[in-house]
Amino acid sequence: YNPPMQHPPLAQARVGIVGLGLMGGSLALALRGRVAHLLAIEPQVVARQMALREGVVDEAAEALTAGTPPLDLLVLAAPVRVILDTLGRLPALRPAGCAVIDLGSTKRAVVSAMSALPERFAAVGGHPMCGKETAGLASADAGLYRGQTFVLCRVPRAAPGEAAEALALELVAAVGARPLWLDAAEHDQLVAAVSHLPAVLSAALMRAAADERQWTVSASGFRDAARLAGSSPRMMLDILLTNREAVLAALGAVRADLADFEAALAAGDEAALADWLAAAQVAHAAYRRF
Amino acid sequence: YNPPMQHPPLAQARVGIVGLGLMGGSLALALRGRVAHLLAIEPQVVARQMALREGVVDEAAEALTAGTPPLDLLVLAAPVRVILDTLGRLPALRPAGCAVIDLGSTKRAVVSAMSALPERFAAVGGHPMCGKETAGLASADAGLYRGQTFVLCRVPRAAPGEAAEALALELVAAVGARPLWLDAAEHDQLVAAVSHLPAVLSAALMRAAADERQWTVSASGFRDAARLAGSSPRMMLDILLTNREAVLAALGAVRADLADFEAALAAGDEAALADWLAAAQVAHAAYRRF
Repeated sequence: YNPPMQHPPLAQARVGIVGLGLMGGSLALALRGRVAHLLAIEPQVVARQMALREGVVDEAAEALTAGTPPLDLLVLAAPVRVILDTLGRLPALRPAGCAVIDLGSTKRAVVSAMSALPERFAAVGGHPMCGKETAGLASADAGLYRGQTFVLCRVPRAAPGEAAEALALELVAAVGARPLWLDAAEHDQLVAAVSHLPAVLSAALMRAAADERQWTVSASGFRDAARLAGSSPRMMLDILLTNREAVLAALGAVRADLADFEAALAAGDEAALADWLAAAQVAHAAYRRF
Repeated sequence: YNPPMQHPPLAQARVGIVGLGLMGGSLALALRGRVAHLLAIEPQVVARQMALREGVVDEAAEALTAGTPPLDLLVLAAPVRVILDTLGRLPALRPAGCAVIDLGSTKRAVVSAMSALPERFAAVGGHPMCGKETAGLASADAGLYRGQTFVLCRVPRAAPGEAAEALALELVAAVGARPLWLDAAEHDQLVAAVSHLPAVLSAALMRAAADERQWTVSASGFRDAARLAGSSPRMMLDILLTNREAVLAALGAVRADLADFEAALAAGDEAALADWLAAAQVAHAAYRRF
């Protein structure tokens, strides 16, 4: 019998953060002074140097290896496919086990990989619903998570995950966010509509308006609608490939809706156009009141 | 021989504003004290009462009639098809003529109607590139135009339009905007991409994410991408119907581009997806530097 791992409270935990970009860097800044030790695992030397110089973390390593000092909690803050790769290598790299949480943008694949971990890893899926269109440690902000929703997904597995779940709740509270427990599949379905779809539409808009001449007559409406086109292609690629079915369904539905709209416009069908636009305005008004 | 109309400088002009919504109301607030007299022509009694109570204008009338006192400059700040209707009735309503400028969102139809006016009307097409997703006088803001681009379109016609053009430039300067002379057809082509296309995409996004459950996991990315869905359907309908060809061309191109993207995603073609996303990010970075 292997008793489930015991984890210290967050304030006494040695925390490792894999990936010191916008999300990992902001988390490190928010956790500074609230944990026993902060170790960054970040392949880019410039980010490691900046993090050490500015005291964002106590220690920085290029990669997670068997030689990396013991950690109580590992936070995976990398693009989704890097998270999946790290989870696959964890059993070999951490013979003593540890608690694990991730900040990845899709949850089904991550939670599935977490459920395959040995019992010595207590794991919880996480997705803080915040961000910026600019990436990297230079954009990191200690207040990024404050007041924002932080989705948590339980990992279905034999070993009880209570220890990791308690630690995850402590982490969410420490950065000032609000926890929201969701099923991983439902999370992926919901964010396909409110996160991945807008990112693709924003990119399509930017591709259609990529000419300087057009920008001379653009205003704040375009600026806001095009903002997500600045998202990192690397991060977006991992999101899209790990949430393919839901994104394809959302995009297909929007493309069909746009085709209906175009047909009404081509026919000069004022009533149909007015209804189409009014439904969007009504939904937007309800969303603003939400 | 009819000499071209002489117009007083703006500071001595009696100015009428047709439509006291966001744009007309903000213009009135910005012109307050900078013209001889401000008359609002606004069908809604609530807006007229608010405007008089708060001293936004000196006088308010329900409609432009033959009995409306003489005006030096008439600013048409209504939805495009109301502007077109007003231009058609002007010759009968203003026997003495006046200078005319409009703030409509499309310019080809308006400038064409302006060119059909008798010589006693000196006219210029206008489109200030600013706005909000909330409509009405209650959202009006004296600073709305400040620092923004104000497109002006010359009206091709027999009579010289210099008097109206000089007055239009004075008006643009008075509200703190920057004038940009453009051909009406080119204007409509450009704004189809950076104004009408994002409005339709934003509405399509909001229609696809109209469920409260989805909003629980939405963040600032969705908020910004969905903002234009709040635009007035009445205003959008007039824009779309008076810029139909350019909007249909832009929408058709985006829909084809999205179909390519979906095919690459369905096939798991990482290289094609990465290129598609990277082109958007590169264009966005150039736009931000612009």
